[in-house]
Amino acid sequence: MDALEILSDLENVFPYFQPIFSADEQLVIAYEVLGRYQSDGTIISLGPFFQDDQIPDEYKFEVDLLLVNQALEKALELDEEISIFFNRNAELLMYGNGEPFLQTLLDFEKKGVNLKRIVLEISDRNYEGDLDQFDHLLQYYRTYGIKVALSSMEKGSNFERIAELEPDILKINLEALKSTATGVNFNDVLFTISLLARKIGATVLFENIEMSYQLQFAWKNGGRYYQGFYLHPPAAEFVPRDFLLYRLKEMFHDFISYEKRKLETVFSTSEKFQTKVHEIVMKNKKLGYEGLFQAIVKEMDQAAFRMYICDEDGFQKSANYFKDKEGWNFQGEYKNKNWSWRPYFLENIIKMRNERKGIMSDLYSDIETGETIRTFSFPMNGREYLFIDISYQYLYEHDQLL
Amino acid sequence: MDALEILSDLENVFPYFQPIFSADEQLVIAYEVLGRYQSDGTIISLGPFFQDDQIPDEYKFEVDLLLVNQALEKALELDEEISIFFNRNAELLMYGNGEPFLQTLLDFEKKGVNLKRIVLEISDRNYEGDLDQFDHLLQYYRTYGIKVALSSMEKGSNFERIAELEPDILKINLEALKSTATGVNFNDVLFTISLLARKIGATVLFENIEMSYQLQFAWKNGGRYYQGFYLHPPAAEFVPRDFLLYRLKEMFHDFISYEKRKLETVFSTSEKFQTKVHEIVMKNKKLGYEGLFQAIVKEMDQAAFRMYICDEDGFQKSANYFKDKEGWNFQGEYKNKNWSWRPYFLENIIKMRNERKGIMSDLYSDIETGETIRTFSFPMNGREYLFIDISYQYLYEHDQLL
Repeated sequence: MDALEILSDLENVFPYFQPIFSADEQLVIAYEVLGRYQSDGTIISLGPFFQDDQIPDEYKFEVDLLLVNQALEKALELDEEISIFFNRNAELLMYGNGEPFLQTLLDFEKKGVNLKRIVLEISDRNYEGDLDQFDHLLQYYRTYGIKVALSSMEKGSNFERIAELEPDILKINLEALKSTATGVNFNDVLFTISLLARKIGATVLFENIEMSYQLQFAWKNGGRYYQGFYLHPPAAEFVPRDFLLYRLKEMFHDFISYEKRKLETVFSTSEKFQTKVHEIVMKNKKLGYEGLFQAIVKEMDQAAFRMYICDEDGFQKSANYFKDKEGWNFQGEYKNKNWSWRPYFLENIIKMRNERKGIMSDLYSDIETGETIRTFSFPMNGREYLFIDISYQYLYEHDQLL
Repeated sequence: MDALEILSDLENVFPYFQPIFSADEQLVIAYEVLGRYQSDGTIISLGPFFQDDQIPDEYKFEVDLLLVNQALEKALELDEEISIFFNRNAELLMYGNGEPFLQTLLDFEKKGVNLKRIVLEISDRNYEGDLDQFDHLLQYYRTYGIKVALSSMEKGSNFERIAELEPDILKINLEALKSTATGVNFNDVLFTISLLARKIGATVLFENIEMSYQLQFAWKNGGRYYQGFYLHPPAAEFVPRDFLLYRLKEMFHDFISYEKRKLETVFSTSEKFQTKVHEIVMKNKKLGYEGLFQAIVKEMDQAAFRMYICDEDGFQKSANYFKDKEGWNFQGEYKNKNWSWRPYFLENIIKMRNERKGIMSDLYSDIETGETIRTFSFPMNGREYLFIDISYQYLYEHDQLL
């Protein structure tokens, strides 16, 4: 694409709009503005134009300003609850110290576009200017009510940067879900991002949703906003707010039912374990740790692959009883180790001590075997807590547990 | 520092060792090898030498190989359970396709250094070579039992990269804890990293621990291994394994007691809320949502700032009842919104439905006010779940709740 061709033919530059849907209302809550250029009857994206390092910033800024003006002019048609997302890389945002762009926004504020509806989708990857100055400018914009979405997630999520910028929205590109390279742990990464977002009060927006399973994935991983061809492609015109209301309601209903069934299974499995372990502990509590472990193995050999007992400070009182290819054996070196530093450990101890009931953990990777497992913990009394690690094999055979 | 001076004076190049301690055993479990150079009676770090882009890789490799040899020679003194951490940036690791370094390790394996004790502390920031090839080399090393620690955390944690590499150890630099820029949300970031580590089965190592509060911070955030001047500076000689055993045991004991007291407070507060809310709901259940909310405000005005009721699929059945500067008022626009996509939402619903008991949430940021809050959720019956958001002010006044 020739930059000069575009610059000398600005009447063929215009914005496209891709709707963003919300999980809570199942309505269109925003549009992302995307640049387009019509040449010889075909419409092409201006993305490459804006990303081309060879094209001077002032050319890009000229084209961008035109798009911003056209987009905001058209946005006057929109319901006042609908936001408008503009892509800004650091260079574009910093152009003219950010003043001309802000001036344009303020002009449209007078025409009725509340600046709270403006979202700047920023990316500061590869920015070679002064990052502090960039951050200051963003904070300045925010004093007008303008929101910040961080879309640095394509090339990798920098968590410290997220914490530093405190974006209103975290934009996560689901394209990576298609590659196998990042596949295995991608779920864990997204789950983790959604927890960080919750902790810092940011909203998660998933983009590039192209298939139904990606929508489910986004929903399951704390996504509140969704965008992608599967929902609606970018287009010259807006769609009715409730364009997908019925379909999304139906889909979410299915996601919810499926998830509730899975959660019910985990809960009822936990109850089953509770009943059985309670019974075994009551019957065998006089046998000592060794006898107790052997009694558990008699009834739970299929499920368990490791067990041990800790006190309420996390000091291990027993050896590990561990099953490998040759069968069950004791690992004495674990005795006296302390596990209080592990996430959730003391929290679960306090819960068990007070409620006198066992807890089934979430799925996590065993640090020694690397397998995906769960742990069932059980309060034997106020001083002794029994931990039974449940094998991947067992979870796999009861697939609602995975 | 003049590179040629060092290269022509290799007899004054030697390794220093900084011990790494574990939370589970409170013993030294490893040493990190650090390059040193003695010139005119002063000992200086070779860090700048290895980081200097102007110095050709073959010079660095020559100095590094010398250090590796000396360090492994000295490591023959060590207990077989103690690991040795070597810093490798991508260039150094890829030098000679990684073969000469591996050959050195294999030579020492014959002398009794099990390669399972070798940890490569890698950083691939700014690497301009082929990252795939680098990853392949790492996988190749790992087939020998060699472990990988990812220490890319200084300039920001790339979570996708963590998931891709599946490091055995995540090394987190606590230096950032001293700066206020990253301060506010740093806790959330570290907590999130520790959860990701748990999910993928990696161990978290905190480095640059220089004060007692940093050790507590590391312990509280899922850190299993600790390193820093507060524990022991790098030195020419090894220390006894149990060098800090007594002191660490004492400190961990304090951390554990403090944390358990906090957790007990959260638990007992939850019980208090349970009793009170249960009583209010029983007394006022015929009044409708509006009457119920007003009855709750009468008794819990100090604690609550928002309340609403959802069904078990997360659809909001009531308006929001919200307290702002002017007092309590209804926000009708929240009715019929769905919250099932929020992390923990359905999980908590299933738990409440089955246990018929309320749940006090962890601390998180309210998405509208930005304040740190907790939510108390309560099952009114099988179909209606009451959510009471508890203000920062209240948590602050009961500081064990923060």
